[in-house]
Amino acid sequence: MADATAPVELLVCTTCRAGMPTDVEGPRPGTQLFDALNASDLPDNVTIKGVECFSNCDFGCSITIRGGDERWTYVYGNFTGEDDAELVADGVTKYAATTDGLVPWRERSTHFRKNCIARIPPLETK
Amino acid sequence: MADATAPVELLVCTTCRAGMPTDVEGPRPGTQLFDALNASDLPDNVTIKGVECFSNCDFGCSITIRGGDERWTYVYGNFTGEDDAELVADGVTKYAATTDGLVPWRERSTHFRKNCIARIPPLETK
Repeated sequence: MADATAPVELLVCTTCRAGMPTDVEGPRPGTQLFDALNASDLPDNVTIKGVECFSNCDFGCSITIRGGDERWTYVYGNFTGEDDAELVADGVTKYAATTDGLVPWRERSTHFRKNCIARIPPLETK
Repeated sequence: MADATAPVELLVCTTCRAGMPTDVEGPRPGTQLFDALNASDLPDNVTIKGVECFSNCDFGCSITIRGGDERWTYVYGNFTGEDDAELVADGVTKYAATTDGLVPWRERSTHFRKNCIARIPPLETK
């Protein structure tokens, strides 16, 4: 049954370098974004998980949002790191309020409009 | 339980134009690829489904391969249309023979190595 409170997963690539040279040491932008999101105020039905590599390295930092058999899954890219935590939190909050994952175009941030890497339809369990 | 015969879905974007100008009429490359795949010899555990748009239009034709809670989901792009049906069939056949969706690098075709748009981890049901 359609349910806007169904659990949502926010997957964050913790290995993303966001274009940073590979010989730079220290925390990666993806890990910093992950940490900043963990400190963010997110809806109760959202769980954050770190993932090592979405194979979207040319357009990282990257996140994936999914949740439940009735929502579309979205991959978004081109985040810069922790500075984008609020932007990501806004997007996932809107997604988590839907039953099908489809946030109306006019409600999406410019970044989310322009940096959708791919979307995958829900499992058709009906 | 891990099972290489668990059902696999091969999702094909039927609206992909593969760079074809938007004012060209007639069947789209994505639909032609979809039709050619339906006529292909695929493993019994693979089901083909047409989908309208993965939002990966800049790198279409696109496909998504997924199946079961234990396999990674993959989005691949930059197929040209029906001429690539055999290439796609090869990739999905190898994927469908795995329990986790991870086809060893050396077994992947050059196209699959170079045109992975994104991958998404399995649902963690364990």
